[in-house]
Amino acid sequence: MTDWLAFSRACVADITAELARLPTRTERERVVRLGEGGDETTVIDEAAEQVVVARLEALGVDATLVSEELGVRMLGAGGPLHVVVDPIDGSVNAKRGIPFFSLSLAIADGATMDDVVFGFVHDFGSGEEWVGRRGGGAWLDGRPLVAPDPGETIEILDFEGTTTAAIAARAPAMEGIARRLRVMGSLALSLCHLAAGRVDAVCCLKPARSIDIAAAQLLVRERGYAIELFEADGPFGAAPLDLGQRSRLAAAATPDACARLVEALQA
Amino acid sequence: MTDWLAFSRACVADITAELARLPTRTERERVVRLGEGGDETTVIDEAAEQVVVARLEALGVDATLVSEELGVRMLGAGGPLHVVVDPIDGSVNAKRGIPFFSLSLAIADGATMDDVVFGFVHDFGSGEEWVGRRGGGAWLDGRPLVAPDPGETIEILDFEGTTTAAIAARAPAMEGIARRLRVMGSLALSLCHLAAGRVDAVCCLKPARSIDIAAAQLLVRERGYAIELFEADGPFGAAPLDLGQRSRLAAAATPDACARLVEALQA
Repeated sequence: MTDWLAFSRACVADITAELARLPTRTERERVVRLGEGGDETTVIDEAAEQVVVARLEALGVDATLVSEELGVRMLGAGGPLHVVVDPIDGSVNAKRGIPFFSLSLAIADGATMDDVVFGFVHDFGSGEEWVGRRGGGAWLDGRPLVAPDPGETIEILDFEGTTTAAIAARAPAMEGIARRLRVMGSLALSLCHLAAGRVDAVCCLKPARSIDIAAAQLLVRERGYAIELFEADGPFGAAPLDLGQRSRLAAAATPDACARLVEALQA
Repeated sequence: MTDWLAFSRACVADITAELARLPTRTERERVVRLGEGGDETTVIDEAAEQVVVARLEALGVDATLVSEELGVRMLGAGGPLHVVVDPIDGSVNAKRGIPFFSLSLAIADGATMDDVVFGFVHDFGSGEEWVGRRGGGAWLDGRPLVAPDPGETIEILDFEGTTTAAIAARAPAMEGIARRLRVMGSLALSLCHLAAGRVDAVCCLKPARSIDIAAAQLLVRERGYAIELFEADGPFGAAPLDLGQRSRLAAAATPDACARLVEALQA
């Protein structure tokens, strides 16, 4: 059986080497093509994905790969094992050198969010390592996450999907709901911060993709907090592990807090 | 003559030890009093300031200390040498554990912004060390900052002064001026990011204090970029090194880009 934590850490080492090889915006930000996920693929996105795919191919597993730039492809004979990768979550930060972006890697034994058994998020800024295991809790740097929980009263709300227009459209509705906003630029990391009680809520203002959230959602749900793709058909756990963008996202300490956010986003 | 870089690094080591002693929100966020600068002083703010003041007193210098929590006080016989300290810039992030906050420390040979000769900002998240020297350039981790510059066309604008109400009020005016927003939570670090071309502009939506900007403004100005306290009397360089909050702040690559921000903030 594959040691996915060791695998993930090896990917981190490889991506760290690529970041050193491409140290500044000048090298990182050149657009090489439009990724399957719809965003522009820059040199740094492509380089990070290539090292992860190379490591996956070297493993020789039969699996379905779902990845930001390449889309869905079979590894070996394919099959129910899903490897869901965003090689750089927070690409804009990465290309500009803002130290807040991550590798997000999830392993699932089927094709939906409920099937995710292992989630891994590495923060290339702080060096923090976030791990979720289905039925096994949420972990930061090898220690289980414990209280304090995020607040039912929202002091800090993190917005992702960060165009000025989207924030201008939605910030007014959050007055009275959240005292402060953060816009950090990595949805995966912000969900990990929710799992650790660092922020009290997260909203993604554009339709979220599974690749961005598959790993971090496991930490949020293992902690017992609420997360919703409120415009999608069916419950959160039934969301397919693909590149579709079906719904904006809200997450908070409790279903009640989450419902307040959803109401404000839909107003 | 004091080696202020060595001094600053020693303060970082001491504050790092305090952060380890107070590891989570539970220990850090208790409010001990209202600081002289007007913000609530939490346990972590106080602990960080105490270690810096202890090191200053051990130096035995005659100087004027301007600090977030204590206000203005004489060291020894006082005098023209000013030590301007924000022990934790980004207090909300620090108390919540979000790895984006800093020590900001500036040394001046007089009482105004133009008198700042040395600026030091340490990022406790990434570990990055930012240094400015008057007439001697801007430095990151011992290397001089060089191109690429921030853009005349603003891709990323960082907002500080981060209440939901302030962002809701000002984000709409930035449509057409800035494509994306960030709200990271440390004004000193965001100005350093501007100096490195990581963001293209910074606005502080509440009146800024000298203690928050004295160190980082030196990096911005040494790179030749524009920074304005546009509601203050007199030019930026004449701003007094005290705890007054006289004006909101805008900074960008050029005077023209800065003027567009000021116009939008005053609309």
